[in-house]
Amino acid sequence: MGYDKVDELAINTIRTLAVDATFKANSGHPGAPMGMAPVAHILFNKFMTFNPKNPDWLNRDRFVLSNGHGCMLQYAILHLFGYGVSMEDLKAFRQVDSICPGHPEAHDTPGIEVTTGPLGQGFSNAVGLAVAQAHTGAVFNKPGFDLCTNYTYCFFGDGCAMEGVASEAASAAGHLQLGNLICIWDDNHISIDGDTKCAFTEDVSKRFEAYGWHVQHVKDGDHDYEGIEAAIKKAQEVKDKPSMIQLTTTIGFGSKLQGTGGVHGNPLKEDDCKQVKEKFGFDPNKSFVVPQEVYDMYHKHASEGAAAEQEWNQLFEKYQSEHKELGADLKRRLTGKLQEGWQNKLPVYKTSDKAVGSRKLSEAVLEAIHDVVPELISGSADLTGSNNTRWKSAVDFQPKSTGIGEYSGRYMRYGVREHAMAAMMNGMSAYGTIIPAGGTFLNFVSYAAGAVRLSSLSHQRVIYIATHDSIGLGEDGPTHQPIETLAHFRALPNMMVWRPADGNETSAAYYVALTSQNTPSIMALTRQNLPQLEGSTIEHGIKGGYVLLENKDANITLVSTGSEVAICLEAAKYLKENNNLQARVVSMPCVEVFDAQSKDYRLSCIPDGIPAMSVEVMSTLGWEKYSHEQFGLNRFGASGPYLDVYKKFEFTPEGIAKRAAATVDFYKDVKPLRSPINRAFLQLI
Amino acid sequence: MGYDKVDELAINTIRTLAVDATFKANSGHPGAPMGMAPVAHILFNKFMTFNPKNPDWLNRDRFVLSNGHGCMLQYAILHLFGYGVSMEDLKAFRQVDSICPGHPEAHDTPGIEVTTGPLGQGFSNAVGLAVAQAHTGAVFNKPGFDLCTNYTYCFFGDGCAMEGVASEAASAAGHLQLGNLICIWDDNHISIDGDTKCAFTEDVSKRFEAYGWHVQHVKDGDHDYEGIEAAIKKAQEVKDKPSMIQLTTTIGFGSKLQGTGGVHGNPLKEDDCKQVKEKFGFDPNKSFVVPQEVYDMYHKHASEGAAAEQEWNQLFEKYQSEHKELGADLKRRLTGKLQEGWQNKLPVYKTSDKAVGSRKLSEAVLEAIHDVVPELISGSADLTGSNNTRWKSAVDFQPKSTGIGEYSGRYMRYGVREHAMAAMMNGMSAYGTIIPAGGTFLNFVSYAAGAVRLSSLSHQRVIYIATHDSIGLGEDGPTHQPIETLAHFRALPNMMVWRPADGNETSAAYYVALTSQNTPSIMALTRQNLPQLEGSTIEHGIKGGYVLLENKDANITLVSTGSEVAICLEAAKYLKENNNLQARVVSMPCVEVFDAQSKDYRLSCIPDGIPAMSVEVMSTLGWEKYSHEQFGLNRFGASGPYLDVYKKFEFTPEGIAKRAAATVDFYKDVKPLRSPINRAFLQLI
Repeated sequence: MGYDKVDELAINTIRTLAVDATFKANSGHPGAPMGMAPVAHILFNKFMTFNPKNPDWLNRDRFVLSNGHGCMLQYAILHLFGYGVSMEDLKAFRQVDSICPGHPEAHDTPGIEVTTGPLGQGFSNAVGLAVAQAHTGAVFNKPGFDLCTNYTYCFFGDGCAMEGVASEAASAAGHLQLGNLICIWDDNHISIDGDTKCAFTEDVSKRFEAYGWHVQHVKDGDHDYEGIEAAIKKAQEVKDKPSMIQLTTTIGFGSKLQGTGGVHGNPLKEDDCKQVKEKFGFDPNKSFVVPQEVYDMYHKHASEGAAAEQEWNQLFEKYQSEHKELGADLKRRLTGKLQEGWQNKLPVYKTSDKAVGSRKLSEAVLEAIHDVVPELISGSADLTGSNNTRWKSAVDFQPKSTGIGEYSGRYMRYGVREHAMAAMMNGMSAYGTIIPAGGTFLNFVSYAAGAVRLSSLSHQRVIYIATHDSIGLGEDGPTHQPIETLAHFRALPNMMVWRPADGNETSAAYYVALTSQNTPSIMALTRQNLPQLEGSTIEHGIKGGYVLLENKDANITLVSTGSEVAICLEAAKYLKENNNLQARVVSMPCVEVFDAQSKDYRLSCIPDGIPAMSVEVMSTLGWEKYSHEQFGLNRFGASGPYLDVYKKFEFTPEGIAKRAAATVDFYKDVKPLRSPINRAFLQLI
Repeated sequence: MGYDKVDELAINTIRTLAVDATFKANSGHPGAPMGMAPVAHILFNKFMTFNPKNPDWLNRDRFVLSNGHGCMLQYAILHLFGYGVSMEDLKAFRQVDSICPGHPEAHDTPGIEVTTGPLGQGFSNAVGLAVAQAHTGAVFNKPGFDLCTNYTYCFFGDGCAMEGVASEAASAAGHLQLGNLICIWDDNHISIDGDTKCAFTEDVSKRFEAYGWHVQHVKDGDHDYEGIEAAIKKAQEVKDKPSMIQLTTTIGFGSKLQGTGGVHGNPLKEDDCKQVKEKFGFDPNKSFVVPQEVYDMYHKHASEGAAAEQEWNQLFEKYQSEHKELGADLKRRLTGKLQEGWQNKLPVYKTSDKAVGSRKLSEAVLEAIHDVVPELISGSADLTGSNNTRWKSAVDFQPKSTGIGEYSGRYMRYGVREHAMAAMMNGMSAYGTIIPAGGTFLNFVSYAAGAVRLSSLSHQRVIYIATHDSIGLGEDGPTHQPIETLAHFRALPNMMVWRPADGNETSAAYYVALTSQNTPSIMALTRQNLPQLEGSTIEHGIKGGYVLLENKDANITLVSTGSEVAICLEAAKYLKENNNLQARVVSMPCVEVFDAQSKDYRLSCIPDGIPAMSVEVMSTLGWEKYSHEQFGLNRFGASGPYLDVYKKFEFTPEGIAKRAAATVDFYKDVKPLRSPINRAFLQLI
């Protein structure tokens, strides 16, 4: 305890940097940094252990700014402690190609753990980071080797507290008894619409207690430094519950507009900037000023962190000799690479193997590889039996006191919380030792869209096991049958949408998903049974698209995915017998991976000279990129046994053949008939 | 009070109908209907007022089954009380084209208020229905004329209780003090993964108390009929808080598997069906049996409801003579049609009018029409000042005790709760007297995707005011810049995605949105300023797409939306001056509305013979439908001043011209060069 003038100076340096950067950018959010500067100073300088020179050190304490709009707080902290964020970077706040963008992005800025800004996400990521620590510690810590002991700290605002994703994650965290998680609520009574009393009058602390959290209240977050310190200390001591500290602060502390919405999302006016600096003893005519004693204090703490890492590195060296297998495993995990030869475990199928739903083929993959991919943590949003996400010997990730699992368990029971599942998986992936896979129905991946987007933007290797992927789910009907979902996620950059047609393609999907370190995947999987196809192999599948049925005399190429591929093969026979037309069939389990192949390869699949028609039982949107004509479903589905539903919408060999014949006829006079693979210009990527 | 054998028989009739229908369908969820049959019987027969012969009567009590998978409970009730659901319909449960689909769909089945099944939605719809009642009552009720007094009742399960959308809505409902809302939690300890103790151990009742709800617990929901009745009665009496009744029940009550997950989502085995029937005194060898005394009891209640409606009709007649204006207004609202001539208030712009952001153009529409469209209720998810959703004289919809509004107010403060906002709007729209419009950033409409989908599926006239619609929002950066969002919602059936280019198109968008009684709309609106375009008119805009710049000698058609249309006009000039190429420009504010125009009209916009290139600063997915080549952004954006960001990605006259020239060159040898409007076959719709 004991705070002196240098502490005060440090706090006010953070504040004035936030004022200066937002003023210079003429945009941004000074209010939260000014209000939270005290708690940030105390947390980073008194509690957190980290080495700014190696932001990837495994056992660093994690920090998440869930109210990401206040990111000048975090950029200032990163700069002051000596992370790779320079004063020039701060001055380029919110400018094109700056590493200090408008909201924190994990892959751009050293020291940013997760990408935040969309409210509620960071909080939920923090729960995932805490899950990952608890699991990693449970697996790797051994007597005398406390390798993994870090805390996860999170700041969140009223906006995060209102978001459903954070409610879901908070409920899950309470159930999971994550004592390593400490979240601090910036209770400043202000959101964009003004006083929170216009929409948000619940008792937040009572709600967190209801979730099973340990809750404290620091009533004067602007001045009561000792109170803040004591609360964090107490929170650290509570080991069987996550902690929430209600920290009442004044938004924009120091500004003439402090405590009002005026200081939330707009820079201070010039005279207010000067007024703030004078109030805090800074030269009102200078900007971006850091007193040397502030640098000194923070660099001292940083060097203590560097020393702690050194000590840890020695411990880890020793660990690797005493616990050879575990040590090697952890070392490997930190590289992001899988065990050598793991892929030999992937199931391979022959056409004589029985027809099964691809959700079961996915289960077979998990069953086959879970031993050789120990970093894989599966789970489901309360659809375990339907998503087939659990291998037989799996142990639940649960606190021991529940009697139904332990933290070393690798199966997550997320509850009916799709959005939190996705956001938690982003945090788990960001931790660095885990590859999370989580299941729900494909239609309900949409509930998680906010977090799925951040899987892509922040380059997380997260796998969405999305079963019941079409009208083929049958009786549950239109409320559960995806129509727009694949188009949605195919339009999302850096996302692989897989829709395998059989067992070998399912294995291929997992191969690419698990070896793509910076790209998430959605596995769209059927409920209904699919035959094992002639010509399907893992080697073909990993190209994203390939010729399943070649025919040199073809009049048309049928391009299809998943459950419709087998029907296209039937349609090809039908066309030959009834229309005197020859068809080739291309299976396209993943358009994004196909796009990454050479143009020659792609043209060999969808060649010039004959028309191509896509077949997929959902929105046709986007299939024009790979076909001249599209057969799909641009309306909602129907509730009924799946074969009846397929028949209703004509997804039968006859229905496909009828449209294929029309397509051949329609394009017969076009010269040259170019493949849609040929484009006039390339897209920016 | 007092329950006799007929009550018991009625309860068990509901149970056995659910058993029989799921058994016959070989699919469905018998557990919830069997567990909730007692509370359903008591609620419908003792408390609810409704007329099955007129399911649209305004002042009926509303019922929402948020755990929609238990819909055989609701279908059975509807049948027994004499709604237009026959025994044959029950026997066709979960069959193609049945009015008893796998989950309840509002537009298919008389008596179903809202479409449920996706968990948490129904609960949130119920909050919206209660908001609508409170508002409608506040506006129309007068001394001696209690026209609008109904309650909204909702059943919800553990799954709904876990979903974030329901948490958001519950928090909002508590703040809004909706005493007309009574929600009953089917506390049966079972979700799909089994015992809820594996993921859901929070104190739900305490959480609802924290939200400001009145909470009761009926501990034996299987047998304590008096307790159920007393709790509902008490809940009715609490006028200043929504009520939640924790009702502990046994899922699948009566089955051999009662109280287990085995009875949740699978029909009972044949022997168990028989066992249940014997236990309840039914003939085990007969199915779909309804004792006459059960029909009699329920039809008696139904006729009381019909009489109540008659009485209400007389009251309303009298009201119309005593309160002429209000009476006529309410009568009109119930037809779904707007006031005659309202559209004359829509703002009209000349090219000399100043450039403004389309979010402000949207605000101008709301300012201009709010008096003549009194059923319009605007609002925002805590972005009022950014979404420009509030007209100047608007009064907040708030409980009077807050001192900041009243229930007759027409401006909703949804808080940072996008998903609940959307789901509440679905309920508000379903009530029948309101057109809700709600704002957030376009990127965060994705948070609400689960509910937006149901706006479409259930045909709700809901307007999403989605500002900050592209990289043009600038500094907030990639976390806030939509890329995939428009593709997502364009792939969603029965959704209009509007992206107006200027003031007249914005007025056109509102014209179509407000007059389309069965289709929701998303208004994608800019933060940045847009000029008023030559050739843009409301009459053009309402066609969804039109020729903004004609050119008989054109080499290319540029097809664009929103903020890029003006840049395309510049590009046309640039092409002429620098490339000796002539360009036409088509503005396409809404592809869905354009699709509904005649083929001749569409071909007149995007003609044969010259190539078309689309220009829109986000995912190109789907633009192939209207163009030969696409210029867009298939990657994440950047944080910076918006003109810098546009320049970085080459969305400039030069950048467009370069690609247009390449397009002209690429297609010069193709004969015939068909417009993409020409297709080989029509899609099923």
